[in-house]
Amino acid sequence: MAIRWGLCGTGKISHDFSVAMKTLSAEDHQIAAIASQSSDSAKEFAKKPRIPKVYGSYEELARDPDIDELEHFKVGLLFLQAGKNVLCEKPFAMNSRQVSDLLKACWVDYFVPFQATWSRCFPVYAEVHKLLAEEAVGEVKLVKAYFGSPHSAGYCLQYLPTLLLMVFNSERPESIQASGVLLDSVDESVVVVMKFSRKRMALCAFSIAAHFSNDAVISGTKGSIRGLGPMHCPSTLVLNDKKTEYPLPEPCLPLNFTNSTGLRYLMEEVRQCLLKGLKERVRMPLADSILLTEIMDEIREQVGVVFSQDRK
Amino acid sequence: MAIRWGLCGTGKISHDFSVAMKTLSAEDHQIAAIASQSSDSAKEFAKKPRIPKVYGSYEELARDPDIDELEHFKVGLLFLQAGKNVLCEKPFAMNSRQVSDLLKACWVDYFVPFQATWSRCFPVYAEVHKLLAEEAVGEVKLVKAYFGSPHSAGYCLQYLPTLLLMVFNSERPESIQASGVLLDSVDESVVVVMKFSRKRMALCAFSIAAHFSNDAVISGTKGSIRGLGPMHCPSTLVLNDKKTEYPLPEPCLPLNFTNSTGLRYLMEEVRQCLLKGLKERVRMPLADSILLTEIMDEIREQVGVVFSQDRK
Repeated sequence: MAIRWGLCGTGKISHDFSVAMKTLSAEDHQIAAIASQSSDSAKEFAKKPRIPKVYGSYEELARDPDIDELEHFKVGLLFLQAGKNVLCEKPFAMNSRQVSDLLKACWVDYFVPFQATWSRCFPVYAEVHKLLAEEAVGEVKLVKAYFGSPHSAGYCLQYLPTLLLMVFNSERPESIQASGVLLDSVDESVVVVMKFSRKRMALCAFSIAAHFSNDAVISGTKGSIRGLGPMHCPSTLVLNDKKTEYPLPEPCLPLNFTNSTGLRYLMEEVRQCLLKGLKERVRMPLADSILLTEIMDEIREQVGVVFSQDRK
Repeated sequence: MAIRWGLCGTGKISHDFSVAMKTLSAEDHQIAAIASQSSDSAKEFAKKPRIPKVYGSYEELARDPDIDELEHFKVGLLFLQAGKNVLCEKPFAMNSRQVSDLLKACWVDYFVPFQATWSRCFPVYAEVHKLLAEEAVGEVKLVKAYFGSPHSAGYCLQYLPTLLLMVFNSERPESIQASGVLLDSVDESVVVVMKFSRKRMALCAFSIAAHFSNDAVISGTKGSIRGLGPMHCPSTLVLNDKKTEYPLPEPCLPLNFTNSTGLRYLMEEVRQCLLKGLKERVRMPLADSILLTEIMDEIREQVGVVFSQDRK
């Protein structure tokens, strides 16, 4: 049975989302409608991937009885209250209070806010998960993760703790130490050190000013696992010195973001969850979304980044 | 004119030191004597590289009028007071008070305690220094450095800030945040985040429990410089994606430590300093040794590592 998706907004990620969906069977995934605050841009967008319905407001899309699943956060609450499952592109929410509001909305109506953390659905992450379970590098001692690109946005920082929570089995860090430098009240570069139980540590560095290798390395007593190309949507895994490629499907149109046909793995995970009637994602449970947001709140507080939403 | 070296101790590093010296001209560098607390082991050691004089105590070596330069810290003060220049293998001193004692001893007599930080003498470091001066990667934003090996010793941690002080022109960090886990009161893994002026950051991770890539990456607004193989004695430099090799001379005997024929660069720098009558090393000035020790004191305090020397 096809999941009927409704897209919110006509931005770059919506484009890549629709291109990635073309790598999956149309019997499983369809974009049934698109909405934008400007109906002209929605109409223009709808021509390329041939989306049947176009709305000039999110409210109209929310009322469409044919839509199972929606993408984008900003209007997540609106759609949850209208009885839709929602896949929230990052940020899932701006702070923990907003996450709580989203969860209250869905727990009343049994519709789900999925966090669109695509990383964990990539085959490389699945393999990392398996290798860790097998203790392929012995006991994990330190995880390092980097995301640095002068073209990235601040909330990409969340990719780093997302990986850590996977490696450390969704365990709450014993301590978080964040250090950062700001550019016009935005976090330009941030370094975060976390301690987990059993003397395990993690360190992340994020920057919108410098070029990083954008890799992640899990170091253990017997070796290391490295995800490359880049760490949040990897196509290469290096176990000690052995490299394995996990190629992504070719896109039918040029993409805006690196490796974003990999959104297909997220789409398919969401579909499987809905088919099975699950109320949260297997690879990114709600508890992880909550903990991730709490960690991000803590990092922002230590570094001194305040959102307008924090002041309410 | 040859520098006449006196070796203290017959350990692994003394072996590598003597092997590395064979890659230099005997007209420039000679091991004139070796001393050990056990004269048997000193005699045994002296056979291989044919060292003319052997002493069964450090005191005898200190009195030898033919020795210009000595290697090893433990007895550094003894030799400085006996009017020798001293090249102190790490640790240069256990804490800042000891550094101060060493400096008092040499400033009276005009003999020099050189810190045996060999890293900065490697051709890769010289090239990094040049590339930074040319702003080859734009403005430096973040420096990362790792040293992790289950066979290393705790004081190898000092390699990491040594690099940072070079990159940041011996500037004192604005802040130091260290986080670590201990194993029987020794630092098993330590992560240090430092902030420098102009919104530049550095992060180091050190471990005696896990395998790291042992590289260092300098990330700037226009690209990155990476030192490999490993970071404290690199033979490879990667500027963005361009790799350049700086091969080391082959040793005449098997070595105990990676790339340790590279000690030759340190020996030759020391020789040049002595020939020029310099009272400190150009590539590792005394101010850097002092600042490095202060940084290490701060890291140890935050992490909770206390040496017996701190209690005096």
